[in-house]
Amino acid sequence: MTIETKLQQFKEVSEKISAYSLALTTLNWDSSTIAPKKGAAYRNKMAALLAGELFSIENSPEFIALIDDLFTETLDDVTMREIRQIKRNLDKSRYIPKDVFVEYAQLTRDAENVWETARDNHDYEAFKPYLKKLIEMTKKVVSYRKDTRPVYHQLIDDFEIGITIEDYDVFFNKLKAEIVPFLHKIIDKKITEPAWLSRNVPIEQQREVVEILMDYLNYDKGSGYIGESAHPFSSHFSVHDNRVTVRYHEDMFTSSIFALIHEVGHATYNGQVDEAYQGRAIADSMTYGMHESQSRLYENMLGRSRSFWSGIYPKVQQTVDALHDVSLDDFIQGINHVACSLIRIEADELTYPLHIMVRYEIEQGLFNGTLDVEGLDQVWSDKYEEYLGIRPPHNGLGILQDIHWSGGAFGYFPTYALGSAYSAQWMNAMRKDLDVEKCLENNDFKSVNDWLKNHIHRHGGVYKPNELLLAVTGETFNPQYYVDYLKEKYSRLFDVSE
Amino acid sequence: MTIETKLQQFKEVSEKISAYSLALTTLNWDSSTIAPKKGAAYRNKMAALLAGELFSIENSPEFIALIDDLFTETLDDVTMREIRQIKRNLDKSRYIPKDVFVEYAQLTRDAENVWETARDNHDYEAFKPYLKKLIEMTKKVVSYRKDTRPVYHQLIDDFEIGITIEDYDVFFNKLKAEIVPFLHKIIDKKITEPAWLSRNVPIEQQREVVEILMDYLNYDKGSGYIGESAHPFSSHFSVHDNRVTVRYHEDMFTSSIFALIHEVGHATYNGQVDEAYQGRAIADSMTYGMHESQSRLYENMLGRSRSFWSGIYPKVQQTVDALHDVSLDDFIQGINHVACSLIRIEADELTYPLHIMVRYEIEQGLFNGTLDVEGLDQVWSDKYEEYLGIRPPHNGLGILQDIHWSGGAFGYFPTYALGSAYSAQWMNAMRKDLDVEKCLENNDFKSVNDWLKNHIHRHGGVYKPNELLLAVTGETFNPQYYVDYLKEKYSRLFDVSE
Repeated sequence: MTIETKLQQFKEVSEKISAYSLALTTLNWDSSTIAPKKGAAYRNKMAALLAGELFSIENSPEFIALIDDLFTETLDDVTMREIRQIKRNLDKSRYIPKDVFVEYAQLTRDAENVWETARDNHDYEAFKPYLKKLIEMTKKVVSYRKDTRPVYHQLIDDFEIGITIEDYDVFFNKLKAEIVPFLHKIIDKKITEPAWLSRNVPIEQQREVVEILMDYLNYDKGSGYIGESAHPFSSHFSVHDNRVTVRYHEDMFTSSIFALIHEVGHATYNGQVDEAYQGRAIADSMTYGMHESQSRLYENMLGRSRSFWSGIYPKVQQTVDALHDVSLDDFIQGINHVACSLIRIEADELTYPLHIMVRYEIEQGLFNGTLDVEGLDQVWSDKYEEYLGIRPPHNGLGILQDIHWSGGAFGYFPTYALGSAYSAQWMNAMRKDLDVEKCLENNDFKSVNDWLKNHIHRHGGVYKPNELLLAVTGETFNPQYYVDYLKEKYSRLFDVSE
Repeated sequence: MTIETKLQQFKEVSEKISAYSLALTTLNWDSSTIAPKKGAAYRNKMAALLAGELFSIENSPEFIALIDDLFTETLDDVTMREIRQIKRNLDKSRYIPKDVFVEYAQLTRDAENVWETARDNHDYEAFKPYLKKLIEMTKKVVSYRKDTRPVYHQLIDDFEIGITIEDYDVFFNKLKAEIVPFLHKIIDKKITEPAWLSRNVPIEQQREVVEILMDYLNYDKGSGYIGESAHPFSSHFSVHDNRVTVRYHEDMFTSSIFALIHEVGHATYNGQVDEAYQGRAIADSMTYGMHESQSRLYENMLGRSRSFWSGIYPKVQQTVDALHDVSLDDFIQGINHVACSLIRIEADELTYPLHIMVRYEIEQGLFNGTLDVEGLDQVWSDKYEEYLGIRPPHNGLGILQDIHWSGGAFGYFPTYALGSAYSAQWMNAMRKDLDVEKCLENNDFKSVNDWLKNHIHRHGGVYKPNELLLAVTGETFNPQYYVDYLKEKYSRLFDVSE
């Protein structure tokens, strides 16, 4: 077989994989937005069947042989990286015996069900044996890989290629040393949440704000759509079709707005990938941390800044009755209010990474043997008390709040904090080329999007995070930018020393 | 292989086919409702790829061998009928050489593009050579079947199994002999269209009418959804998920309403199929005529009757400002207004089948050699003048108005008229069991739906139309019910003799 024939075969299978992925994305979007409830059982069964078909294609002996073969060939840089990514994933799964894989899949399904009930009943003891089995089974599944690094190291690498336990240790130790005491200075000021944040805002008015934002953010409806769902998400169909959903809360309208800005950050990332990558794995193989860096950059670095709102706030104020007596300064102060809370997904920008730190430390302990599932709920609560100064009244608001572990996703959490940290590093680089504040104030969000496109977005998933960070910012991941950003911003907002 | 193993294999492939079909339905729904325009090219390419995957499964040598094998086995009645249906379809395609099939597929794609431009330019001459090729190619493709019946006879059978040219001849001759002169009596009265029909009705008010109708028709949103699209359609996802779309016209609000009732008729049919057929071909292999019989029954026999509206009209009148001075009697008269028009899809109940008759006579002539594409636009116009008393000013409003022929769909049109005729026969049978008027007046649409479910819907596509008609009404297709119904209803409405 000539190299051209092999590459042609590779292209054909890649497109086939993309077709199945698009179908599954569409089914999932449909299910999460408008699909009628009574059709769910059948629809889920059919979607699972289709996912099985995709799995068979991705793991067929012919495709594996083709990838192994192409791996040894001399190829253009992008294709070579793409082949390496696919091979890396195949190498993780190819040696797992089928019965072990099936057992693992069954365990995660069972554990998710048990977790849901346990959470509702605040009953950690019910979930505990499953958590134990999940950790054992994860170790077992990972043990089949021809990789001698510690299990948690490998898991971290699965979610964020190239980032190590040492990197995370440096990162979280810095947060612990600098942000925890800094946070407590703010908390000690006992600033209460502004009352207008929970004023009732009719959904119709919120929709109008969304229109203002879409326009401002250059989110083009010709290649996007705003749906509604129980939990906001973004959904990548193709380079020219990236949708978001919003959920309107009448009594927390800023929450709906920032969730939307966050999701548009994800959508813009996918929408600015080089069109030439369409239909290839490389088009959307960005890491979790990288993706989160773009959504957090939108939501926090830009979206909660004064310059972001200064131009559009008069229009927003005109639209939202509840803001009639809220000045721009009050608004900025309110959307950056800091409070120690128990629930990660409701946390503000400053406390958010500390929620992640708790989970990271626990995961690390579970996999290096310094922690055990026995009494882990108390460990959780102790850490919340230590870092955030509050203790969950029950495990439903504590260790049982997240779905991730029940699905076997260990090593995922830290990417959330990493994304925020990356975004500070990106901002620092962007500022060297662009007067970001001036762009925002001049209603010129396009220049921001263009910078992101040229430096980050267009590459899709071609480069590892540290490769791209190095190329764009001149250094690999450096958490100092993030710590500096947080301290500078919040010391200013709350008039405390850094 | 034991019979159990074979049936198990058959079940597995059937479910796989259902999974692909659901994915394609979902992609199509998405494209026709909310999907952003700029993603269309990629999405269509991926959908075509997936359709190709489905084709490969349905036409794999293993599946064909399995069907041939099961065809000779003794099976339960439903499975036997299902196997026969699948085999019948395979027998149509299995002997066609691949290059002929590819040529035919390419021709229809090209012809659809040419047709669209030709229609916009009113240019029959541009479409003519394609129409000629389409007929030749259709004859060629059909010639590979091991079936000696005339080509048009086979095409008719493809769209409506068991119905023959003789059946259609009897049907259309009856329409020509009885309905054409009857229609002219009404036209001669020169009754003008009531002005309120084109009054402006805001979309918000139309949406409220849709809610009233959904409630009245027992269309359950737990297993349905009302979307919006350029052309209304219904979409079958599964027994518990049948959606419809509506298009709101501010200046023709009754048109939006009756399109909706029509589509809910289709959706209700699919939604009342026996749940045990879920995931099998039999669940949705109803013929075109049968499906149209249910939508027309909803739209016309029930939806344009006085009893249908008598209970809900006060609410509708309260909702729609434009109806404030329109009495129930005026409303009924208006929604049954008769006018000879040029466009099939805008035709009223009485003239609609005559539009079909023109197409049927032309198709028949093209395939039996009594007509040729040369000068066919004049033949079309002559027939419109003869039956409907009007002549298209140009071919865009004449022979070029429909997409069907450009896609190679010959033999499809007559099923539209057949559906209406079936529905009169169903109504006649339903009336023997049920006081339909009383049910409607008492807001008891459920009894109507239950009757349809028990006698028609639950069977899905198990029986041929004539089998079901015979079982339920005591006779095979008899067009007299339809002719009687039309004459009785319209002589009453317009005070003319039958």
